Amino acid sequence: MTSRTINLALIQSQCFDNADENRQYIKTQLKQAAANNAELVLLQELHNTPYFCIEEKPSNFDLAETIPGESTEFFSALAKELSLVIVCSLFEKRSAGLYHNTAVVFDKDGSIAGKYRKMHIPDDPGFYEKYYFTPGDLGFSPIQTSIGKLGVLICWDQWFPEAARLMALAGAEILLYPTAIGWDPNDSEQEQQRQLDAWTTIQRSHAIANGLAVASCNRCGDEGNGELSTRFWGNSFICGPQGEMLTQAASNTNEILQYTIELEKTESVRRIWPYLRDRRIDAYQDLNKRLIDQ
Amino acid sequence: MTSRTINLALIQSQCFDNADENRQYIKTQLKQAAANNAELVLLQELHNTPYFCIEEKPSNFDLAETIPGESTEFFSALAKELSLVIVCSLFEKRSAGLYHNTAVVFDKDGSIAGKYRKMHIPDDPGFYEKYYFTPGDLGFSPIQTSIGKLGVLICWDQWFPEAARLMALAGAEILLYPTAIGWDPNDSEQEQQRQLDAWTTIQRSHAIANGLAVASCNRCGDEGNGELSTRFWGNSFICGPQGEMLTQAASNTNEILQYTIELEKTESVRRIWPYLRDRRIDAYQDLNKRLIDQ
Repeated sequence: MTSRTINLALIQSQCFDNADENRQYIKTQLKQAAANNAELVLLQELHNTPYFCIEEKPSNFDLAETIPGESTEFFSALAKELSLVIVCSLFEKRSAGLYHNTAVVFDKDGSIAGKYRKMHIPDDPGFYEKYYFTPGDLGFSPIQTSIGKLGVLICWDQWFPEAARLMALAGAEILLYPTAIGWDPNDSEQEQQRQLDAWTTIQRSHAIANGLAVASCNRCGDEGNGELSTRFWGNSFICGPQGEMLTQAASNTNEILQYTIELEKTESVRRIWPYLRDRRIDAYQDLNKRLIDQ
Repeated sequence: MTSRTINLALIQSQCFDNADENRQYIKTQLKQAAANNAELVLLQELHNTPYFCIEEKPSNFDLAETIPGESTEFFSALAKELSLVIVCSLFEKRSAGLYHNTAVVFDKDGSIAGKYRKMHIPDDPGFYEKYYFTPGDLGFSPIQTSIGKLGVLICWDQWFPEAARLMALAGAEILLYPTAIGWDPNDSEQEQQRQLDAWTTIQRSHAIANGLAVASCNRCGDEGNGELSTRFWGNSFICGPQGEMLTQAASNTNEILQYTIELEKTESVRRIWPYLRDRRIDAYQDLNKRLIDQ
């Protein structure tokens, strides 16, 4: 077996109010991660701005940008300068009236290796994403980079085993989730704990079901106020292909979470747990249905 | 909302050497569960015998029985006598040379409400199930009973999110797994812990992804010897629709694990986590493929 590793860093932080401040902060963190030998950096979802989907406001579309555009130029230059693969998460303006929640992957030479448009779009009080983002139309395609094939998914996608499975079947070697998820301060502590635990559990389960390492980078800190407030719960983590937690950030601190993933573990785990061998693809056709009406 | 509950009992135990002893033991446990107001009892996988798949041995096919047959008569009578819904797990002889690993559900009147034939069949050292069991051909259909629609799956099925999803889409109100899983005594303690944790995590994730309670009933105790030995790890559990652990058995003791499930929680959890609303059924067709060749 090959002995390939990826030194992976996640940058968890509370967002500043504007894109320039956020980019400058991320730049300092990227430099630090690179100094610590990171090869791949995963940023949190929509890292350039506060989580604007907390309300439906037409002027928020001003926050979107084209791809390529100002942010991709910024991160492309840093990827090249620091020789990093970077997964960033942008509010993409594709056309007037057509926007996506899009991850862009830069290779070490600064080129755009690929992009992924968030496929599953949430919408619930304080997370009005269906107002802003058209569901992705690029499918579940992993992105080939010089260090491996990255299965990039975004936030709400993390609750759908189908998304993780499709990335794995298409050859992803690791699953990466930029995310922005938090607590409603009105919920009880027990409910908050259940939600955090469910969030960790479902993503660890994708590692287990597919024999892949999984990393999830979440923001932290309070945003909004009153009825429109969210406490982003941090807890960014990296787990191995048996779902075993390798490292996890705190709920409320800016942090660079770094760990060296051993990609060859996928081969050994899939030998003891050969789920791909046994999938009943002859009996899965109804997964394409909304509901199986009786 | 309705306020429907199910008082559910799982009977975890070390198996005796022969079917009659096992059935008699289970009978005492069923009576005790019924005396504690159980309405639904989930038995462990292949509870009538030691885990014979530990080796490939032609005479082991003598352990199989027809459905209906001796065991279904036995459990049917108990279901009626005790007014219990019972999920039992049998080695089904369907025809000469054609056998299945089959769960049979009895309603409170003793009738057979339905059966499920294990769809995903494992095969690895000490678990030679592909030798014994033809993969199920009844699909992923929940079984309607007087107390609710039961999504019965079996053991290895628990590692496949597709199976849980299909049961949920077809209207299952709870997922139930008879199972027989254990440690290889040659594995390190850390590896054993990772495996147990992965097993719990993947099943809890089915609860989360589908907003359903999940119960898994495993056997315990050592079976076989030398290179052909397994320590069945018990840890039967019941979790709620956010994946929250409600109750869990020890690894090595015979136990009746009992808990009252509130079915209406599915409605409230699916309101805050409306995954079924957002599934990208337009983009899931490749789930029917073995691999997505690039």
